[in-house]
Amino acid sequence: MIKKPVVWPQMHPITGVRIGTASAGIKKPGRSDVVLFAIDEGAAVAGVFTQNAFCAAPVIVGRDHLARGDIRYLVINSGNANACTGERGLQDARATCEAVAQLGDVHLRQVLPFSTGVIGEFLPVEKIRAALPDAVNALEVNGWEKAARAIMTTDTCPKGASVQFEHDGEIVSVSGVAKGAGMIRPNMATMLAFVATDAVVAQPVLDHLVKVAADKSFNRITIDGDTSTNDACILIATGHSGLPLLNEAAGKLYEKLCRAVIDIMQQLAQAIIRDGEGATKFVTVDVIGGGSSAECLKVAYSVAHSPLVKTALYASDANWGRIVAAIGYAGVSSLDVKLIKVWLDDVLVVENGARCASYTDALGMGVVRQGEFGIRIDLGRGQFRETVWTSDLSHDYVTINAEYRT
Amino acid sequence: MIKKPVVWPQMHPITGVRIGTASAGIKKPGRSDVVLFAIDEGAAVAGVFTQNAFCAAPVIVGRDHLARGDIRYLVINSGNANACTGERGLQDARATCEAVAQLGDVHLRQVLPFSTGVIGEFLPVEKIRAALPDAVNALEVNGWEKAARAIMTTDTCPKGASVQFEHDGEIVSVSGVAKGAGMIRPNMATMLAFVATDAVVAQPVLDHLVKVAADKSFNRITIDGDTSTNDACILIATGHSGLPLLNEAAGKLYEKLCRAVIDIMQQLAQAIIRDGEGATKFVTVDVIGGGSSAECLKVAYSVAHSPLVKTALYASDANWGRIVAAIGYAGVSSLDVKLIKVWLDDVLVVENGARCASYTDALGMGVVRQGEFGIRIDLGRGQFRETVWTSDLSHDYVTINAEYRT
Repeated sequence: MIKKPVVWPQMHPITGVRIGTASAGIKKPGRSDVVLFAIDEGAAVAGVFTQNAFCAAPVIVGRDHLARGDIRYLVINSGNANACTGERGLQDARATCEAVAQLGDVHLRQVLPFSTGVIGEFLPVEKIRAALPDAVNALEVNGWEKAARAIMTTDTCPKGASVQFEHDGEIVSVSGVAKGAGMIRPNMATMLAFVATDAVVAQPVLDHLVKVAADKSFNRITIDGDTSTNDACILIATGHSGLPLLNEAAGKLYEKLCRAVIDIMQQLAQAIIRDGEGATKFVTVDVIGGGSSAECLKVAYSVAHSPLVKTALYASDANWGRIVAAIGYAGVSSLDVKLIKVWLDDVLVVENGARCASYTDALGMGVVRQGEFGIRIDLGRGQFRETVWTSDLSHDYVTINAEYRT
Repeated sequence: MIKKPVVWPQMHPITGVRIGTASAGIKKPGRSDVVLFAIDEGAAVAGVFTQNAFCAAPVIVGRDHLARGDIRYLVINSGNANACTGERGLQDARATCEAVAQLGDVHLRQVLPFSTGVIGEFLPVEKIRAALPDAVNALEVNGWEKAARAIMTTDTCPKGASVQFEHDGEIVSVSGVAKGAGMIRPNMATMLAFVATDAVVAQPVLDHLVKVAADKSFNRITIDGDTSTNDACILIATGHSGLPLLNEAAGKLYEKLCRAVIDIMQQLAQAIIRDGEGATKFVTVDVIGGGSSAECLKVAYSVAHSPLVKTALYASDANWGRIVAAIGYAGVSSLDVKLIKVWLDDVLVVENGARCASYTDALGMGVVRQGEFGIRIDLGRGQFRETVWTSDLSHDYVTINAEYRT
């Protein structure tokens, strides 16, 4: 079976980031549903947001505030996505920022708002406002696990990851939390991730790093191909480590930090897949030998999104015909199928446009009956490679998504 | 519930096309699985084939033969797709054509081969060769229903449509059969359609017509977005009606013929959706007000492919949040969500970027609990429109696709 992240990891505190949670009564009474991140002055904050044209009000407001810089607070609520709420939704998101700004004595533009939960209902701003003083009082550097729990909606477990590395005798920490169970939950607006480091990073470098790292992690997972209206990934660099300013995306320190941030984001992204709706398999789709990254991704997503491939995986059926069909319709131009090879883990299945002579169903079944395994595809036309993580399509997926509101 | 095509329609024979079937023992013993279409000399034949790069051997051979013209026979087998069979697959497809060519005293290049069924197994050419004399002996103008049954694989019912129209005192007939249940069946290579008319049509006009009509019919349906390795749609014009040669894609006669061929192909395409894997709903997704056909189609397919929309439809849940999310991630650039309207049949659900004030869940549920209904989306940015037909995503879809080989 798939490995759920059952043991909460040790989270290294990030000096310059304090986290407080509170219960506003948006979710079930008594469950915390409001999170405040207080960020020391002078930190750099960068983010990437959903590409969905129907992006939620907090995404529109947050993008605008982030562009102005000097961010001091993140305010997050779960239980209500403030999505598809029109003009009033924008006012509600700004009102939430204003409430935080008053408590923290900053400008409302120094607050980024995030919401996750049901689409199409108005945000209960008064409830959030009433809970904020509790969140302020609770602010502490060890608030990561409470934050991970407070942002959960239909997640079955909190998701966190933390790592340290050493550079020139100094320790740098990177910690993060995320929520999401499936790329998008039934009528829910889903993925949020908040990652912080005490490294000293110039704003343009952080802007670049968050894009690179999100691209290698959250943008490489798929449950069902549905992109939420609220997805956001935020990276904070507080600058409290004793290292010099990292002001270009190059060099040994950048490399180490980049690797650490990607590592944390990949752990969080993979935790989302492991907690995916009805997921019984964790599958790594690796496409090598591509002429470009773009074509590797086309093929990887085509396989990872195919309902036929996903239902076969659910049945532990090594149905390679569906995999090659999905490769074939991925839209890669002038693909020479005779050059393509397909493996299940290390078992070669397809070569020369047909089933490999040494392949047997028993060999394939031995791989796909595992809870975690890989599909490797060599396009045989270049040096590029890309990896995507996905899950299967099970009866539970249909049950969860069909019966959510009934 | 969804309406299955239970009553076989009256099929108008097409003078110049005779059809014979036989049993080669590829499917279960006693079930017919080989079909021969004999086409009179002088007919024009045109076709469109799958865009899948892993296209099956008969598609590669058939495209080549069709390009040379003067086609006299179609030979179709069900039960085996001759897909992903490499070099030997090509030889097998040509050997099948050669066997027909010998019996019919034509060149092997005047024969088009088609296969549908399991992927990755070699074609039993000897069985087909042995059955062909029976198919030749059975040739008759009224063979359409037998053909529709013989090409079935996991279809639950045969699919046929026939229409006549009058022009300058002459009657023109168009008849066709198709197979497919889901865009692609478990490990099966799926959709085939054969349509014939006795109109007199020049080759370039027929080439154009088959593309136009397939585009408005078979290219507008989706069950799961998976494109088969064997899809083919063939249009034959025997020229036996008493009308003059139609040698340009214009004029009253062309218009009438075009409408009749699109009508037949849409009936067949919709029959495939109605017989779709686990389908309990027949849904018309209509996108209007687009700036181009391409963007209308992007939105329509985004909604029609979304597993979240499809599971909601299965549950008779008017989950409009999932519909707007799917519109939002369709990839239409600079989409202004405030201009978008969404209806379920005639019930206005979304306008001004939010739920319409007059909308209630009860109104929406009243629509989606029906077996057949429409989702209409106005993008509010142009005059283009496109329509796509789809089904829901049910437990039976997962069961059929997960348990097919177990």
